[in-house]
Amino acid sequence: MNVAPAKDSAAIPFERMTIIGLGLMGGSMALALRGKVPHMTAVDVDPVTLGAATELIGMDAATPDLAEGVAGADVVVLATPVRVILEMLEKIGPHLKPGATVIDLGSTKSAICAAMGDLPEAVGAMGGHPMCGRARGGLLAAARLLYNGAPFVLCETARTTQEAFERARWLVDAVGARPVPIAPDRHDRAVAAISHLPYLVSAALVGAADAEGKRDDLLWELAASGFRDTSRLAGSEIPMILDILITNRPNVIDMIRTFRGQLAALEEILAAGDEATLRKALIEIQSARRAWERDHYRGG
Amino acid sequence: MNVAPAKDSAAIPFERMTIIGLGLMGGSMALALRGKVPHMTAVDVDPVTLGAATELIGMDAATPDLAEGVAGADVVVLATPVRVILEMLEKIGPHLKPGATVIDLGSTKSAICAAMGDLPEAVGAMGGHPMCGRARGGLLAAARLLYNGAPFVLCETARTTQEAFERARWLVDAVGARPVPIAPDRHDRAVAAISHLPYLVSAALVGAADAEGKRDDLLWELAASGFRDTSRLAGSEIPMILDILITNRPNVIDMIRTFRGQLAALEEILAAGDEATLRKALIEIQSARRAWERDHYRGG
Repeated sequence: MNVAPAKDSAAIPFERMTIIGLGLMGGSMALALRGKVPHMTAVDVDPVTLGAATELIGMDAATPDLAEGVAGADVVVLATPVRVILEMLEKIGPHLKPGATVIDLGSTKSAICAAMGDLPEAVGAMGGHPMCGRARGGLLAAARLLYNGAPFVLCETARTTQEAFERARWLVDAVGARPVPIAPDRHDRAVAAISHLPYLVSAALVGAADAEGKRDDLLWELAASGFRDTSRLAGSEIPMILDILITNRPNVIDMIRTFRGQLAALEEILAAGDEATLRKALIEIQSARRAWERDHYRGG
Repeated sequence: MNVAPAKDSAAIPFERMTIIGLGLMGGSMALALRGKVPHMTAVDVDPVTLGAATELIGMDAATPDLAEGVAGADVVVLATPVRVILEMLEKIGPHLKPGATVIDLGSTKSAICAAMGDLPEAVGAMGGHPMCGRARGGLLAAARLLYNGAPFVLCETARTTQEAFERARWLVDAVGARPVPIAPDRHDRAVAAISHLPYLVSAALVGAADAEGKRDDLLWELAASGFRDTSRLAGSEIPMILDILITNRPNVIDMIRTFRGQLAALEEILAAGDEATLRKALIEIQSARRAWERDHYRGG
């Protein structure tokens, strides 16, 4: 369908919202929406997190039961790792109120958006992926401004109605993010390059340092901010990462191939001692990096 | 020689100091030592930087002339890219005052420490490498606390006297860094793993994203903090990086080989869809990364 922009992003277009998965992303969304949504329910498998959802964040209700949690909700946000979202999409259909909107925050979009097409016809659904995060997950890491200024991918599905689109747009605006409409497969290929490959490369870098550190552990004493930054993603939460890598495997493997070619080219020039060519290649890369930071990146 | 710790790190063991190269490292050192060293001279090839050395930082003297700049100095700090340091070590010998101490801040140590052995016998010399920095170089990026808490590698050379060692120790203390004594070849191998390899990997990552971005430039819109961190080093100053890669080539190529093996292993497991093995490998890497941050990293 062809969707028009939200008519009035300030007026809230629904009453009751349920967030499933009160980790970093779900918890930060709850914090950003506090006082803006009339009624918010938390669903989580962890009782301690559920307690915190009401005690610390002030959500109106909390339950470990999926069916109970989504009953009566106008908007249901699925904020768990990708394959848990896929499992939930198989289960929640019968418990959703007719006219409800389902939105997810999963890191890969093709499988999820396809599965959304199997929801009951009376339900609206939109794929989502906020491009923000932290290495550490969990509700304790949540932050009210996590989404602020971040690109928020929105993917249409076979169940995307005008209402679903408008509710999704309202949510994106309400958390301070920027909507980026994009097709699921295009999203998955892009994030393979700028997120999933960087994770694997970061992991391989730590693996290499660890191998060398077993020969000389003074290495760890010397590692400074350059190592901190390049290796940060290697500290990411494993369940989330595993779901990403498995559900986006062909794109990830394709990007590893591209990366390997880039590294091999640099290595060959270096091994040949061809300084003029090395300088040219590194300057080109430096320019691309600086252009991205100047023209596109709006984070901190 | 076997060097003893500085007797009294508070009392300044010299009067006149010259910093050659007022970029990020030299400029930050000058800022950190302001008010602590009785007389500081700046030497730089760039007249604008020289002007700023006196006007902005308040150094006592500034000259583009190497011979004039080192004349009468008790301590001479070489704060340029590695191969410029090597050139200067060939030139400054005759102009140094007998008993002067030469300390460098170069990113690789084997070639420099060997060249220091050819300085006049009346001169003391110590190799140095503060493990701190920023992606952008130049005096405008200088910061008084850049060295604060950072490991500061100190390498003995054939010209390391007790006095040279004590002066170097005083400098390290005065800028707030932690001395890490280490042999030049051991240093060069360790930094290949935790600094030079990460740079090349970061560059190859930007190269891969750039290649993919030429197919779909929406990719740049989606790149967020994970990409920012893993790609940051690719924005580093090229002259410095080229000197590092060329003077530490065998170690860097060796580390690329180790890295390639690590990445290939992860790719193979992923391609096989062997999730249990992938989980185990990624958890091991995550633990190594988190242990480093918890036990060793003292930066911000």
